[in-house]
Amino acid sequence: MSHGDDSWRIRRTDADLERLGETESVFALANGWVGWRGTLDEGAPCGMPGTYLNGFHEQHDLTYPESGYAFPERSDTVISAPNASLVRLWVDDERLDLETGTIRRHHQELDLRAGVLRRETEWVSPGGRAVRVRSTRLVSLPRHRVAAVDWEVEPLEQPVRVRVCADLLANERVPERGDDPRAASVIHDPLTAETGSHDGLDGVLVHRTGRSGQRVAVAVAHRIEAPDDTAADTELTGDRFRLALTGSLRPGERIRVTRFAAYECADVDGTPPGELADVVVAEADAARTDGFDALLDAQRATLDAAWATADVELTGDPQLQRAVRFSVFHLLQAGRADGDRTIPAKGLTGNGYDGHVLWDTEGYVLPVLTYLAPELARSALRWRHAHLPEARDRAAELRLTGATYPWRTLSGRECSGYWPAGSAGLHVNADIADAVLRYVAATGDTGFLAESGAEVLIETARLWHGYGHFDDDGLFHLTGVTGPDEYSALADDNVFTNLMARRNLRGAADAAQRCPEVAERLGVDAAEVSGWRAAADAVAVPYDGKRGVHEQSAGFTAQPEWDFDATGADDYPLLLHFPYLELYRKQVVKQADLVLAMLRCPGEFTAEEKTRNFAYYEARTVRDSSLSASAQAILAAEVGHLDLAYDLFAETALQDLDDLGDKTADGLHLASLAGAWLVVAQGFGGLRDDRGVLSFDPRLPGKIDRLVFHLRWHGHRLRVTLTSREARYELPDAGPDDAVELWHHGERLHLTAAAPLTRPMPPVPDAGPPPSAPR
Amino acid sequence: MSHGDDSWRIRRTDADLERLGETESVFALANGWVGWRGTLDEGAPCGMPGTYLNGFHEQHDLTYPESGYAFPERSDTVISAPNASLVRLWVDDERLDLETGTIRRHHQELDLRAGVLRRETEWVSPGGRAVRVRSTRLVSLPRHRVAAVDWEVEPLEQPVRVRVCADLLANERVPERGDDPRAASVIHDPLTAETGSHDGLDGVLVHRTGRSGQRVAVAVAHRIEAPDDTAADTELTGDRFRLALTGSLRPGERIRVTRFAAYECADVDGTPPGELADVVVAEADAARTDGFDALLDAQRATLDAAWATADVELTGDPQLQRAVRFSVFHLLQAGRADGDRTIPAKGLTGNGYDGHVLWDTEGYVLPVLTYLAPELARSALRWRHAHLPEARDRAAELRLTGATYPWRTLSGRECSGYWPAGSAGLHVNADIADAVLRYVAATGDTGFLAESGAEVLIETARLWHGYGHFDDDGLFHLTGVTGPDEYSALADDNVFTNLMARRNLRGAADAAQRCPEVAERLGVDAAEVSGWRAAADAVAVPYDGKRGVHEQSAGFTAQPEWDFDATGADDYPLLLHFPYLELYRKQVVKQADLVLAMLRCPGEFTAEEKTRNFAYYEARTVRDSSLSASAQAILAAEVGHLDLAYDLFAETALQDLDDLGDKTADGLHLASLAGAWLVVAQGFGGLRDDRGVLSFDPRLPGKIDRLVFHLRWHGHRLRVTLTSREARYELPDAGPDDAVELWHHGERLHLTAAAPLTRPMPPVPDAGPPPSAPR
Repeated sequence: MSHGDDSWRIRRTDADLERLGETESVFALANGWVGWRGTLDEGAPCGMPGTYLNGFHEQHDLTYPESGYAFPERSDTVISAPNASLVRLWVDDERLDLETGTIRRHHQELDLRAGVLRRETEWVSPGGRAVRVRSTRLVSLPRHRVAAVDWEVEPLEQPVRVRVCADLLANERVPERGDDPRAASVIHDPLTAETGSHDGLDGVLVHRTGRSGQRVAVAVAHRIEAPDDTAADTELTGDRFRLALTGSLRPGERIRVTRFAAYECADVDGTPPGELADVVVAEADAARTDGFDALLDAQRATLDAAWATADVELTGDPQLQRAVRFSVFHLLQAGRADGDRTIPAKGLTGNGYDGHVLWDTEGYVLPVLTYLAPELARSALRWRHAHLPEARDRAAELRLTGATYPWRTLSGRECSGYWPAGSAGLHVNADIADAVLRYVAATGDTGFLAESGAEVLIETARLWHGYGHFDDDGLFHLTGVTGPDEYSALADDNVFTNLMARRNLRGAADAAQRCPEVAERLGVDAAEVSGWRAAADAVAVPYDGKRGVHEQSAGFTAQPEWDFDATGADDYPLLLHFPYLELYRKQVVKQADLVLAMLRCPGEFTAEEKTRNFAYYEARTVRDSSLSASAQAILAAEVGHLDLAYDLFAETALQDLDDLGDKTADGLHLASLAGAWLVVAQGFGGLRDDRGVLSFDPRLPGKIDRLVFHLRWHGHRLRVTLTSREARYELPDAGPDDAVELWHHGERLHLTAAAPLTRPMPPVPDAGPPPSAPR
Repeated sequence: MSHGDDSWRIRRTDADLERLGETESVFALANGWVGWRGTLDEGAPCGMPGTYLNGFHEQHDLTYPESGYAFPERSDTVISAPNASLVRLWVDDERLDLETGTIRRHHQELDLRAGVLRRETEWVSPGGRAVRVRSTRLVSLPRHRVAAVDWEVEPLEQPVRVRVCADLLANERVPERGDDPRAASVIHDPLTAETGSHDGLDGVLVHRTGRSGQRVAVAVAHRIEAPDDTAADTELTGDRFRLALTGSLRPGERIRVTRFAAYECADVDGTPPGELADVVVAEADAARTDGFDALLDAQRATLDAAWATADVELTGDPQLQRAVRFSVFHLLQAGRADGDRTIPAKGLTGNGYDGHVLWDTEGYVLPVLTYLAPELARSALRWRHAHLPEARDRAAELRLTGATYPWRTLSGRECSGYWPAGSAGLHVNADIADAVLRYVAATGDTGFLAESGAEVLIETARLWHGYGHFDDDGLFHLTGVTGPDEYSALADDNVFTNLMARRNLRGAADAAQRCPEVAERLGVDAAEVSGWRAAADAVAVPYDGKRGVHEQSAGFTAQPEWDFDATGADDYPLLLHFPYLELYRKQVVKQADLVLAMLRCPGEFTAEEKTRNFAYYEARTVRDSSLSASAQAILAAEVGHLDLAYDLFAETALQDLDDLGDKTADGLHLASLAGAWLVVAQGFGGLRDDRGVLSFDPRLPGKIDRLVFHLRWHGHRLRVTLTSREARYELPDAGPDDAVELWHHGERLHLTAAAPLTRPMPPVPDAGPPPSAPR
């Protein structure tokens, strides 16, 4: 790929300055531990500054006009660590600010292979002085604490006096976000300075939070290239360390500041401030010693290794080719292999949803990472295991059995302030169990199962077994829950929830038998396991015989229809224009629910049921959630509506690049980004692994000429190449004895490294015209 | 009745000082306009001070952890007007405080016939000085702005120096109420002083609220009797006017302060402060001119007239005899005939539920007042009519048709902060319509119908017609609503709601035909009326054929049963110990719902259905709401469980006197108090007036020897006397041509003034053992 290959680069120019907040999210750099939003180096103008550390947060009170039993009283919200990315510039005493003066040219560019954000600006100050500013930023993927920026300025036509201030700034002002329920709670000045010091041109700040009991240390070390007469000075206050360079530059001269930053956070009861400062000072210093080029090389090497599995080649649509790579890039940035950390819904790219972890992680992100980077999926699942104590406590508080994972959280405690769409979404427990089962099935990692996975499966199964009841009809019912579709709530026998609970119960029963020592430790006996299996077998799956479709939840298809004719384009998203009173009781679907059930539990539905169900729900699904389009796309492909699948694929892949939901400024939608890969693999590739059987039913839309993707399966890298004529399966790295069993459109294949297999693509069944969608 | 007749007096002594907040509610005096809590004159110790003016309130913001469309952003909360009841006493520089020194004797006594609160205390100061303090308070029923207190102190054994401070105090400190969702929001220092003045010993304060835009003026005028050497002084600050008397008293001497207070409030844009002050000064002065005895006489005369209809004679249980009179007394205090004011759930006795008006008014209080004091019912209904504009706006906001009355409010705007148990309780609209229909049926007041009632009926009918839908089954369904039982929510086809909506729709159709000019003004045409009737005729009424009972809402009887065996006595009220997640999805009933439907819509159920339904729901109703016991009692009586009915009667009648819910300190439960009369009339008297037909099916429990009650019917006062042997019907005040049609156990009677009718009481059917209740 040449340097000019746009499919690996995302670029924004001065024409995009209007959408700065969105750009900052798109250009966010992260390594699962540290995240830098893609702000301009000079910090202003700025949509929203943000430097996030995984798990670093503050608490705030939740107050209710009318409280209720077990309504959470506190919530976590992500807060920004001190910002080490700032390099401010004054040109003849005029501050570089793209809202003043004249921009000759300007762009920022995210390089998906290099893993850096480059910036180049030619700016003429209001006083008429022209300068060029260039920078390259990275957040190091192999060195979790390290981020760096390589910045330089040069005059273009005339000599200029310049002042360059490289700041490390705590408690940077965050703009208020209005009253959209999906925005973050803003806490002003969340950090209290504990200590700070400087050594030569380098500095370190240590702060602590007020209530969450956390401490954060940030060190910056610098390399400077500048004319000899440049003056360097530093300045330290509680919330700011500043390196200031002052001098004059003639054309051909420049000042270059390379800053190496290192971050660490810890509980205040853990590492003392001085010790934490030492850790980050040493880390920043080591990075400087190795140099910026070494960081670039390591970044590239790490990404090259990741892309070997993660890359998708999509021939026929350059925009979507780029969008898929962008999506996968951010997924790779979001996870962290070590440290039992998880992946919030926005990753470390913004503070939307308060930076919380929701079921997006297990429902969307981990299904991708399980195949592309299973060690990242394992880390996130171990985080869930680590928070089982809070989930058990929550179950006890709710007077339920087993464990009840929070709907949204950072610390492990429930932080949902609206229980009908929060705590009532019990399916999050089955989503977590499902992610455990998928991870184990795809990797064969029985060690993880014994250490962590089985316990999660067992405690969540206990929730379902205690929550449900057998009715006179002999069926096992789960009542009063909220499924994925947030335009319904507190419904009975939500098919998605019930089928996922079935999977959870059976998975726990299997795990208890595979890991008898875990079962014994948790007091699981044979009777309990039989109880789980009996409940799973008897789970109710409401079906409307008259209409020939499954009911999203019991009675759904008898609800009044939504009046789409009377719903204007400005009425979307409906949640901002209609009360829940209307939304909940009518046949309007925010996001894939029954359709998602057909994706997650493919063996529970016949092909004919899938076709009818898809058409029925497609006509009622408004896709007001970014979680929806990918599942719809995959099922559209499965039932043969490939053009529709393609359109929905574009919607999920472009969710953030095109800011389709007008919410990207709050952070990226990792679930949508994950959805892009899922549509490639599960939609067009037809990948399923129900019950551990790897199968492909590939179908390519006409707009895609060729599609290549990879996945890891039990340690092997499997390469799938699709064209309209044929599908090719390869094991490019495998040894002579390695083999993978897989199915292609119902044919069982034994794939070895030596013998790639090619099979014809069967004709796509005529599914007729695609069902109408409401918008 | 002799002075010593305890059935007309409620008394508390020093033994009751532990439950001061509760006592203050029980002893609250009010006239529908002004309410004084029954605090001690000296203001301390105090459970919660409170001087309430009907409609006087402040606004505060409602903030939600996760907001939603049309969640109310502001709420009203009742605030205290300046307290004019305070008379503080210092005895030899020691402040009268029943928590210090020694109480020789102490009592407060509410006289239900005189309409006054008397107090007498003999107290020995810590320094050993003994005094007697006596007071009599009233809030004048005929003079709506006026309240008064006649207070005196005398030394008992030795001379004492005394200082008496009669205060008028604004912004009195209100204690925080904890986080019980049923408590009030506390706003500290809600009033801002605008002006104040004094004239001789008299004073006036004018304050305004911060946000609700209201102004309040309070004047106090005094009469003093004291030894000649007593010094009198006054002191005026922004929030306090003080009359201070200082002197010495020998045994046999006394200081007597009679204070006449007058209150008025107005919109700040209305009457200017000085003008408002003039109004109350004149009113207080006029009351003083007439004198305290005149106030007492007028109070007695007003009550005598009211008791002629309102009194209940219950022979056989002195405690309940007193409790019923207490209940009726507070109902008479709560209403106001003129001014289109309504009756909050706590009347003017406390700040519970923020002083809001809920469906308690139309559902419980007005059914009593319609029969006992119909002019008070009319005033409250006119208040609803006056707030139709807000209800129409709310319907539009919710994207519904017609009008949607608020679940809770003071100003007319929705103030509910938890919509599943607030805005979703659409039945409040039918309750209001039902109260209109009952009022018109019982009074024949067609003028009210044309002026106000028909419009309320029509706009609420429009709500139902637009909200419901016809399904394939040909039935009209109302889905996603919350019925009376707050341990269920967002259910489909709640029988109570549906049957009440049917009544509402038919009532509106009738009214549109009776008042064609109203119909024309509102654009009601024949097609719309037919639509209402068709919907009413087709209303779904879910019935469980297998169990032979109606379903509270669709599917209710298939829900899991509540595990009452595992529910401890400390687990009640359940809402404080279980999440809604559990409560909503199980067969546990907070309060009469289906049973209430059988009371309100008696003709919709057969006798057998009532018996079976009652038994089924009785076993699942925990009575965690004070709205429950009365309806259960009435149906228990109807189906023949008279002992159970009697027990439930005691529960509703003693709700506040015995503080059964531990919430009386926040104010009285007017709905429970109303329930006491309803059980007398509808339970034991078997009174029904379905479709305007007055019928009695009286049945007396064994513990009641004789029961006499009255009601107004089309202007006549009807007297009903029940013994175990016979029922006697009389028209004691009617003229020779007056007559009333009524039914006695299925026999049609033509009652005239000249010929009281006596009929035998039929034997009570053997209903078998009463159904078990869960607690």
